[in-house]
Amino acid sequence: MGPHPAVAAIRLAVRRVLHDILTELNTTAGVPAATAAERLPERPPAPLVLVACSGGADSMALASALAFEAPRLGIRAGGVTVDHGLQSGSDLRAEEVVLRLRELGLDPVEATAVTVGREGGPEAAARDARYAALDAAAARHGAAAVLLGHTRDDQAETVLLGLARGSGIRSLSGMAAVSGAGGRYRRPFLQVDRQTARKACMVQSLPVWDDPHNADPAYTRSRLRHEGLPALEKALGKGVVEALARTAQLSRDDADALDTWARQAEAGVRDASGVLECAKLYALPPAVRRRILRRAAIEAGAPAGALFARHIEEVDRLITGWRGQGAINLPGKVVARRQGGRLVIRQG
Amino acid sequence: MGPHPAVAAIRLAVRRVLHDILTELNTTAGVPAATAAERLPERPPAPLVLVACSGGADSMALASALAFEAPRLGIRAGGVTVDHGLQSGSDLRAEEVVLRLRELGLDPVEATAVTVGREGGPEAAARDARYAALDAAAARHGAAAVLLGHTRDDQAETVLLGLARGSGIRSLSGMAAVSGAGGRYRRPFLQVDRQTARKACMVQSLPVWDDPHNADPAYTRSRLRHEGLPALEKALGKGVVEALARTAQLSRDDADALDTWARQAEAGVRDASGVLECAKLYALPPAVRRRILRRAAIEAGAPAGALFARHIEEVDRLITGWRGQGAINLPGKVVARRQGGRLVIRQG
Repeated sequence: MGPHPAVAAIRLAVRRVLHDILTELNTTAGVPAATAAERLPERPPAPLVLVACSGGADSMALASALAFEAPRLGIRAGGVTVDHGLQSGSDLRAEEVVLRLRELGLDPVEATAVTVGREGGPEAAARDARYAALDAAAARHGAAAVLLGHTRDDQAETVLLGLARGSGIRSLSGMAAVSGAGGRYRRPFLQVDRQTARKACMVQSLPVWDDPHNADPAYTRSRLRHEGLPALEKALGKGVVEALARTAQLSRDDADALDTWARQAEAGVRDASGVLECAKLYALPPAVRRRILRRAAIEAGAPAGALFARHIEEVDRLITGWRGQGAINLPGKVVARRQGGRLVIRQG
Repeated sequence: MGPHPAVAAIRLAVRRVLHDILTELNTTAGVPAATAAERLPERPPAPLVLVACSGGADSMALASALAFEAPRLGIRAGGVTVDHGLQSGSDLRAEEVVLRLRELGLDPVEATAVTVGREGGPEAAARDARYAALDAAAARHGAAAVLLGHTRDDQAETVLLGLARGSGIRSLSGMAAVSGAGGRYRRPFLQVDRQTARKACMVQSLPVWDDPHNADPAYTRSRLRHEGLPALEKALGKGVVEALARTAQLSRDDADALDTWARQAEAGVRDASGVLECAKLYALPPAVRRRILRRAAIEAGAPAGALFARHIEEVDRLITGWRGQGAINLPGKVVARRQGGRLVIRQG
């Protein structure tokens, strides 16, 4: 008898990602993937893959699947848990997670404590501190990759959070399956739902920890999870989470293609001295033109995070609705003005 | 003292659209827009613009703004109300709307009765019947345009309905400001919220009718309006409706640009006999390639409405993940198969 379907599902998801990692490592080394586990004596040590684990159901399920699959592929499996220091006793909690990861057979395993700042709000600050700690741990251990336990439900929530910004399809594209420098971070569970991860922990008798933050209505994501998404499912049907996750993937591909187009078109709309020409910009599709304008504003010093769709629309009207309007002020003291058929975007 | 801000807002929205219509009419006729109201004796009769009015707040506000603005621009204003025959007394209701539109000074005004079928569910069937009746009325009266009262809130709901399909950014692009054959339908209120339309009716003492369907939880849109969207606003903040409406516009521009790209790229990925070549398709960005595959499937006879993202993904794997898999069955008895480096998509 095979494993429980939930366990089979999480293992399959992890196996696929480990296989991708091996293929990439061996492609870089010029060795076919199939020989990964049976190389000659001068082979480097087996690659290490870390799991980032909070002790919650998603990342405990991920750790258990990594512990099962990695040895079968000649990979060493390790784990890191980040102590955010936001609740009393969080250090003991982290030690407990370390013990559980060791019990699964992971090695090396470590807890790493961080200091969470305030920049960008509590959720963003915690995330920044967490990724800095994971980056450092990966570098310290020479890990080939770090697995993250984000599920399809997390992805759906991320899409809705992006939707609320109203800043276009890039913000609808959610979390990437592969991200970070050199593709360090991998999210094997983006197609796995939270219920499956939870079930997999249960049938494997893995104790899990429910982070009280996840149910705290002070957090936007928590309100979305416990109120927003259920209400949306009630109105639109049970397929909403899957539809949101699919929207993320389609939006990401679309945004990538349009970014490519904008990059390629950019050279052709500048004059000999590199200044944007309004007539040539006008001839482009609005979606491409606005991406070029956005890139130009960022290049001139406007902070990407403060540059909203309405800013770009206003600059765009210098091209499409020219009636002698004055200079447009953008974040980061960047100014856009039309001068004799040219669009000049610069600081100060 | 000027009009109430809500009345000023709806009038401005209608004025802009009427101005667009005049500009287009005069551009076609080769006469500058500014002279529209003061042409020479051989001028054609003043153009007619109709409002489609249910008697609800949105379309009554629209009718009142049209009645006010049209004469000032040398435009005749008329109205149509559609009797869907879905409730007893709907004919009397329609007659009442006709009277109210006449009281606003519109002329011609008519009620037109339709028979609602069953195809595509109750909402789609009622919509199809309504547009057919509006098309006929516009043709009968030689109207230059028909104004529709969809507000920013309707647009937000439409985006969420599209999101629930999970079929990509085209379905996120909501309703167009200009649609129909020759740009017949115009939606002046896509940037106006429902509350403003309601307020404008109130301060102008216009009686409005609340369609009980709008509050009937049997309808998806009604559940979304009364439960889904409010819960989402509670989780994400009051800006959600605006963000959804902006997402619609951005998605529409992005989808248009990508469709253009796919159309242009299509010729280059076919061999001399017009068959798709896998190697050339492979070299395209996924977003462009999948649009070409979708177009090819529809051209071969697959009904667009039955063709989902997962179908196209499966066909795409014949290009990107070729391991000798068999033919892919698509809706409309269309079959896609890879044959010696070519992708053949045809019926039967």
